[in-house]
Amino acid sequence: MLIVMDHSAASEQIEAVIAAVEEMGLRAEPIPGSLRTAIGVLGNQGYVEDATIRNLPGVREVLHVSKPYKLVSRDFHPQSTTVEVAGVRVGDDCAPVMMAGPCSIESEEQMLASARIVKAAGAQILRGGAFKPRTGPHSFQGLGVEGLKLLRQAGDEVGMPVVTEVMRIGQLDDVCRYADLLQIGARNMQNFDLLKEVGKLRHPVLLKRGMSATIEEFLAAAEYIVAEGNDQVILCERGIRTFEKATRNTLDLSVVPLVRQLSHLPIIVDPSHATGKRSLVPVMSKAALVCGAHGLMVEVHHDPARALCDGAQSLNGPQFDTLMDELRCLAGFLSA
Amino acid sequence: MLIVMDHSAASEQIEAVIAAVEEMGLRAEPIPGSLRTAIGVLGNQGYVEDATIRNLPGVREVLHVSKPYKLVSRDFHPQSTTVEVAGVRVGDDCAPVMMAGPCSIESEEQMLASARIVKAAGAQILRGGAFKPRTGPHSFQGLGVEGLKLLRQAGDEVGMPVVTEVMRIGQLDDVCRYADLLQIGARNMQNFDLLKEVGKLRHPVLLKRGMSATIEEFLAAAEYIVAEGNDQVILCERGIRTFEKATRNTLDLSVVPLVRQLSHLPIIVDPSHATGKRSLVPVMSKAALVCGAHGLMVEVHHDPARALCDGAQSLNGPQFDTLMDELRCLAGFLSA
Amino acid sequence: MLIVMDHSAASEQIEAVIAAVEEMGLRAEPIPGSLRTAIGVLGNQGYVEDATIRNLPGVREVLHVSKPYKLVSRDFHPQSTTVEVAGVRVGDDCAPVMMAGPCSIESEEQMLASARIVKAAGAQILRGGAFKPRTGPHSFQGLGVEGLKLLRQAGDEVGMPVVTEVMRIGQLDDVCRYADLLQIGARNMQNFDLLKEVGKLRHPVLLKRGMSATIEEFLAAAEYIVAEGNDQVILCERGIRTFEKATRNTLDLSVVPLVRQLSHLPIIVDPSHATGKRSLVPVMSKAALVCGAHGLMVEVHHDPARALCDGAQSLNGPQFDTLMDELRCLAGFLSA
Amino acid sequence: MLIVMDHSAASEQIEAVIAAVEEMGLRAEPIPGSLRTAIGVLGNQGYVEDATIRNLPGVREVLHVSKPYKLVSRDFHPQSTTVEVAGVRVGDDCAPVMMAGPCSIESEEQMLASARIVKAAGAQILRGGAFKPRTGPHSFQGLGVEGLKLLRQAGDEVGMPVVTEVMRIGQLDDVCRYADLLQIGARNMQNFDLLKEVGKLRHPVLLKRGMSATIEEFLAAAEYIVAEGNDQVILCERGIRTFEKATRNTLDLSVVPLVRQLSHLPIIVDPSHATGKRSLVPVMSKAALVCGAHGLMVEVHHDPARALCDGAQSLNGPQFDTLMDELRCLAGFLSA
Repeated sequence: MLIVMDHSAASEQIEAVIAAVEEMGLRAEPIPGSLRTAIGVLGNQGYVEDATIRNLPGVREVLHVSKPYKLVSRDFHPQSTTVEVAGVRVGDDCAPVMMAGPCSIESEEQMLASARIVKAAGAQILRGGAFKPRTGPHSFQGLGVEGLKLLRQAGDEVGMPVVTEVMRIGQLDDVCRYADLLQIGARNMQNFDLLKEVGKLRHPVLLKRGMSATIEEFLAAAEYIVAEGNDQVILCERGIRTFEKATRNTLDLSVVPLVRQLSHLPIIVDPSHATGKRSLVPVMSKAALVCGAHGLMVEVHHDPARALCDGAQSLNGPQFDTLMDELRCLAGFLSA
Repeated sequence: MLIVMDHSAASEQIEAVIAAVEEMGLRAEPIPGSLRTAIGVLGNQGYVEDATIRNLPGVREVLHVSKPYKLVSRDFHPQSTTVEVAGVRVGDDCAPVMMAGPCSIESEEQMLASARIVKAAGAQILRGGAFKPRTGPHSFQGLGVEGLKLLRQAGDEVGMPVVTEVMRIGQLDDVCRYADLLQIGARNMQNFDLLKEVGKLRHPVLLKRGMSATIEEFLAAAEYIVAEGNDQVILCERGIRTFEKATRNTLDLSVVPLVRQLSHLPIIVDPSHATGKRSLVPVMSKAALVCGAHGLMVEVHHDPARALCDGAQSLNGPQFDTLMDELRCLAGFLSA
Repeated sequence: MLIVMDHSAASEQIEAVIAAVEEMGLRAEPIPGSLRTAIGVLGNQGYVEDATIRNLPGVREVLHVSKPYKLVSRDFHPQSTTVEVAGVRVGDDCAPVMMAGPCSIESEEQMLASARIVKAAGAQILRGGAFKPRTGPHSFQGLGVEGLKLLRQAGDEVGMPVVTEVMRIGQLDDVCRYADLLQIGARNMQNFDLLKEVGKLRHPVLLKRGMSATIEEFLAAAEYIVAEGNDQVILCERGIRTFEKATRNTLDLSVVPLVRQLSHLPIIVDPSHATGKRSLVPVMSKAALVCGAHGLMVEVHHDPARALCDGAQSLNGPQFDTLMDELRCLAGFLSA
Repeated sequence: MLIVMDHSAASEQIEAVIAAVEEMGLRAEPIPGSLRTAIGVLGNQGYVEDATIRNLPGVREVLHVSKPYKLVSRDFHPQSTTVEVAGVRVGDDCAPVMMAGPCSIESEEQMLASARIVKAAGAQILRGGAFKPRTGPHSFQGLGVEGLKLLRQAGDEVGMPVVTEVMRIGQLDDVCRYADLLQIGARNMQNFDLLKEVGKLRHPVLLKRGMSATIEEFLAAAEYIVAEGNDQVILCERGIRTFEKATRNTLDLSVVPLVRQLSHLPIIVDPSHATGKRSLVPVMSKAALVCGAHGLMVEVHHDPARALCDGAQSLNGPQFDTLMDELRCLAGFLSA
């Protein structure tokens, strides 16, 4: 931590800051400059709360060198983590994993039809939403536990592990009973109590980046889960909110190589929510693989024109088949 | 809803869209233009799910005229709502209400000292956080239920209703027992299950705007609460996330008059979290009143330099006294 | 400047950084921490180019303490600057200055009618655009030099100094001949050659904040003008670009008190472009004054429904009269 | 264009809007809904100025169906455009083109050394900045015309066409004399006068996206150039400004396939400015190719540690060699 003093800070103010740092059990190293004095803080084992410093008289700015996460950091855990989802491995030494299926679970027929499509095309994990976070209360909210059962049934039928979103702690029992991978959605990335609870479980977790979360906040959210003892966390980039309205969100692909540098956790990409446009999903999927994504999550519906949710960004069976062929080919090229 | 067809859409594609609209029980009105055809959709009673339309062949864009909220809209409920918090009224015909107190509840002594300061200065509602949403798990997380008791005790001692944040459904019983006003924080604005649960209660709710929420999403979040039967909702602007880093967030004051046009719910402003800088809190508080805010929420600590959380944006006693004097004076001028 | 080394930086890497700093004529002060080493840089007289440092092996991050501006900073020039526009003074000891008039100059009749309205209502400076920066080339581009003459004529007729935008260096002669205050628009805030040229003139300049400019960049742009010798610069906040679409831009009012802390230059606010909505202009004008703005720039048209540009955000005569009455009343209260 | 009336609009207000539309020579088609009336506007040949409509009483919103560009649109010009830069072709049927070289031209030796590196590695166009847009005036501003000569000399020496930024109209003669491709930088994307001037030339133009420009504004800026008669325009995505600070900007790769759908102009990607980090340049370069970019612009310096500008994002010779090998391999795969 570096404390930058005001241009006009008095020497007593500087001394008071030094005293406050030392009271915290840390060491203060003044660095007098020609224009202003800075004070380096030493001896901390990670992120230091700056509350008691930031508001002392004469302090202009407090710059943090450490980050609000440690366990998920590659600094402290250089070796890459592999997450296992009912036998499917996601991580550095594994082929990219495809998670696919409809946005929402709508009916037994729809779920089965979609499951068969994605299985036949070669996807490894089946997705489907039973609890749907919708902007307004008058939109379709998902089938709930009934949907979970349909998802499990479809997964069992085609032989695929399943992933689904959990929105509240009270749903965890049900979701854990039926799903192999628990998804925390973008709107809940900072629902810290939910993060702590899934941290106490042994289920693997798919954590989506919040729509205006910085990479630092994203990793700090993962830290909540890992700090409780569950290191089976897959990160997921799904687009961030910007001024651009031509796409639903702005897919931030540079986060993939950056997270791989900063953290040992695997990271996948969801091009469907990021772009909101079916025509962009295949090309952005391929770009994600090239960026080093450990997998993809893609929305597929056997009949997108009748989807109750996000049909405009869903691929149909033939489109998904083609995409999978192209991705296999690209993955082969990349690993060659 | 207006459906815009591609420049090159075939007439069969246009007919298919019309058929799909009619299958939804709505009426379609084609508007042939010189460059492309648009199709107006009539007969709906509010927001229409566009999923089945948006992805038909030949559709370029779907423009919504209706919004994803109705009950909170002034269109449907022209009369302004007044929210009552244990005898303190917040709304159009009431003087602006000041909610003040420390960011977190730290100890009995701190809570009482801060309560006496804000009471003496004339604030009406005491704030204090027992459950703290912090970016990383290694920061102070709040005193929990013990904190709730200290808050209640301080409120009772000085004779003020109290407001505190609730982060999860499992905390609702405790928070309702000790607090008069339930705060939903910015990170939980789209925690829809929590919104639905507080909608079932009779407690008034303070709903903070999410850090990258549009006004439409903000009102749709309030709609979740009101749709369950609880219309005692106060909205709170607390700054949005932008590229600017000189302030903690960017305070969007134009949201105040705009929300007052669009909705009948009262709206207050939190200048402390919006700016993150003590020196900006007084001036932005006054600007908020001029914009028509029905109240303010300001962080006050009896000893900010020792605050465990957000000390840099907290006022001390004398600063808060001065602010309250200025605000009374300004409110007098505005209502004259 | 503080240089933060990688967790795993070798001691030779640290020494190489120290050597590079010393080669720049500066002093390096290593601050060994328990996790990583930081290196303080001393002896610089302002902002240091970090190019040669940032990419040395083992460097994780370079944190700047100094800013890319100096002459406009209050640190170096504590006394507030007053700008004089043909006898109208803008600054700390002056009453807030109102600049008003139509978005574009359309005709002699329109310009005169609008000028009479704003003069009668008490505005001090007449605005009008002759060169219009429009998103696309097929929109009305302004009357050019002919417009400048109409603006001057209207100003002379009613006895007001005039302000107008200059978009390119080649227009400077004409604009200086006819206008008293040169406006640099938001799109040209980083048109550095234009800034340098107006810096060589003796005309006062109104510099608008770019639509995604940080405060630091805004002040650095002003530095370009002042560095050439022209310190008669008025800053203007006109809204920044965010994800919110309910308003044209997001008015960032906290920039006003912040700029007043950081710089000695006066700052005004343009609520018309910031909000894009006539109904929000009066309330945001008042909020701007409360925030300490040294003036306002408001669009007024004698017949907004027929305005060729930005009619939706323009006030008509009676609306502007009412606003001016309210502002005078508020300014009286604020200065009491 | 669709005009949405207020919920409570009176029928005279609706009639007044219809009359205003007809006065513009267009046809108005009222679409009465159950909650509000909308009015479709027909008969226009493109974007309609909504100024006279937007502010009529009772109008709630005006939705545009047409866009502020036409000539650059694929709707009106379905066939892809190929741009030729002194024999190097950029466009659909061409191999991806690599533009590379230092951020700034610093000296004859540096320029030649860098040119030899990029030529040897297989780049087709040499870049180098003679006029540098820098945030503050105290940073290195470029060598000016002297730099142009060094760039030309280096290009001639190694046999490559050269590209360089032009910042003002007064520089056009010099830049055209020495450069084969004129770059308009991000800060000048809406310097409309400069766009018009280069539109009158026969030189090809590289137009960079503004740092907070929407795709619509980006294409409308290109429309300024093409409308003057010069259709030799290459678009360039270079990252947009968001809240994320871990990268210099956020590279918006989905803009590449989207622009290819909307426009017939070629588009390239600059991963160096987008990320600001050398370690991310190779991976994002490859992702850009996969997204369909017609080329790349990459910063290369023979000795990045001594670069006067943007060294942290520049590749050195061996790094660029490796990247070119990988890109050739990838391009071979993609075109197979």
